Amino acid sequence: MEINKETITEWLKTLQDSICSALEQADGGAKFAEENWTREEGGGGRTRIIKEGGVIEKGGVLFSAVSGDAPDFLFKEKEHSTVSSNEDVKVKPQFFATGVSIVIHPNNPMVPIIHMNIRYFEMTGGVKWLGGGIDVTPHYIFEEDAKFFHSEIKKVCDKHNTNYYSKFKKWADDYFYINHRKETRGIGGIFFDRLNSDTEMSFEKNFAFWQDVGKAFAPIYVELIKRNKNKTFTEKNKQWQLLRRGRYVEFNLVYDKGTKFGLETNGRVESILMSLPKIAGWEYDFKTEKGSEEEKTLSLLKKGIDWV
Amino acid sequence: MEINKETITEWLKTLQDSICSALEQADGGAKFAEENWTREEGGGGRTRIIKEGGVIEKGGVLFSAVSGDAPDFLFKEKEHSTVSSNEDVKVKPQFFATGVSIVIHPNNPMVPIIHMNIRYFEMTGGVKWLGGGIDVTPHYIFEEDAKFFHSEIKKVCDKHNTNYYSKFKKWADDYFYINHRKETRGIGGIFFDRLNSDTEMSFEKNFAFWQDVGKAFAPIYVELIKRNKNKTFTEKNKQWQLLRRGRYVEFNLVYDKGTKFGLETNGRVESILMSLPKIAGWEYDFKTEKGSEEEKTLSLLKKGIDWV
Repeated sequence: MEINKETITEWLKTLQDSICSALEQADGGAKFAEENWTREEGGGGRTRIIKEGGVIEKGGVLFSAVSGDAPDFLFKEKEHSTVSSNEDVKVKPQFFATGVSIVIHPNNPMVPIIHMNIRYFEMTGGVKWLGGGIDVTPHYIFEEDAKFFHSEIKKVCDKHNTNYYSKFKKWADDYFYINHRKETRGIGGIFFDRLNSDTEMSFEKNFAFWQDVGKAFAPIYVELIKRNKNKTFTEKNKQWQLLRRGRYVEFNLVYDKGTKFGLETNGRVESILMSLPKIAGWEYDFKTEKGSEEEKTLSLLKKGIDWV
Repeated sequence: MEINKETITEWLKTLQDSICSALEQADGGAKFAEENWTREEGGGGRTRIIKEGGVIEKGGVLFSAVSGDAPDFLFKEKEHSTVSSNEDVKVKPQFFATGVSIVIHPNNPMVPIIHMNIRYFEMTGGVKWLGGGIDVTPHYIFEEDAKFFHSEIKKVCDKHNTNYYSKFKKWADDYFYINHRKETRGIGGIFFDRLNSDTEMSFEKNFAFWQDVGKAFAPIYVELIKRNKNKTFTEKNKQWQLLRRGRYVEFNLVYDKGTKFGLETNGRVESILMSLPKIAGWEYDFKTEKGSEEEKTLSLLKKGIDWV
């Protein structure tokens, strides 16, 4: 296909469709509810929410494609210096941004939370880039699952560029970090931003990599569900899940750039905050028991672990 | 008493004691657990946490008094321009800050959440000021309770300065505001900061006002507990309480200056985040039913309501 904003938009909608089908099938119970919305300044989105399923307690697979006058702050960044500032041009520069964002919170604390986002951005003057990331947040870390997840992601990276996995894995470790807790959000994954033709590969090659990240989501998460959904759990496991979800809330509200940007720029609040769990909890100065599974998980919420 | 950092510190500890006693008595079940901590750079605190009580599900009454080298950012603010910058002086300027902070989350959704903070700050060069605030966040707004709360707070203000209530009530409306939701956190109260001898009253007179705010907390909240603790509630009321607590979490993690400052400056995380509830919830695009109590409460989460 020719790569332009129309074909990228269509491809993302098709990806949203196929991911929703795969998740509904893996869930075995709930169906996504769809909500279409438009943005006054241009564009809109297709929000799909799933809840109270056999596997999934609360989750969303969101597509959006928005456009309009490029906000001024974009011109303060060096990366966009090829574009003349508002003062110099008669016609206001336009931006276009499209992407798919996913967060899934499962019922069973043995099934991990997963997040993925892939996005494309372009602006008047020929600026265009790709970004994205996928990361897994287990309530309990099973090393064989962590190895499986990172190996699959590494395969996707290696197919396109053998530098990408280590570079983007480190980026995820740094990005998905709860600084005030000195904990990573989970076992990480990959994170990348502003991939374009100025980087080591052409835009076309980066686009192929980016598509493969999107396509990897469903088989990976379906496998993680399959491995863990029938595991038994106790009330104590559920309590721990609430606390880990509390940390997820802390990350998203305090650090996540997409969330902060969305809330500050009058974005669609319900779409932005679909990432939050149905319930989360906090306990003052909670301490894990020595030798417990909780303590083991906590000890693995560190940067720089080689999971592969 | 002579007003200096030692006497203020002692007074705050006594206030913490009396508030904890009053809350234990009102709760009728749980007792506060105390934790003393010290800060490497100077000072420390006495954290008191209560949980799983007859009335209170989770809460804290925290005293702290910290000191040390004044952080550089303090010198970037106009208010401190009377102090020479670090470069000009040989001895590093010192700061001292003490205060009591309270957040109480009740079990019964008919009992409101309450928050109070009073604080004193001083720095080398004669800079000193008082700050504080008290605000109530009902899960369900009962207008007679809102009127009672605001009337009591107005009385405290009027005793010292007839301008204070309207000025500080407006400040609270603006401060305790969840901008992305276009909702106030609750029914507000008062908020004030940097009261000192430059303002319309002397430091001594402001100090007397500030003490009265602290002393007003226990009788007000004990009355609100008494009025509401035996009200019956349904599962639907509990679900709504979770959603309102979710909003409380959003406010504290996204907007609250004390929380943000504490997390950014490597403060004591468990003390800072004691304000979060035991459990909170989120639901995608929740809509209240027409004519319901939830809808009524939501319609009253607005700035500028004259509750008195």
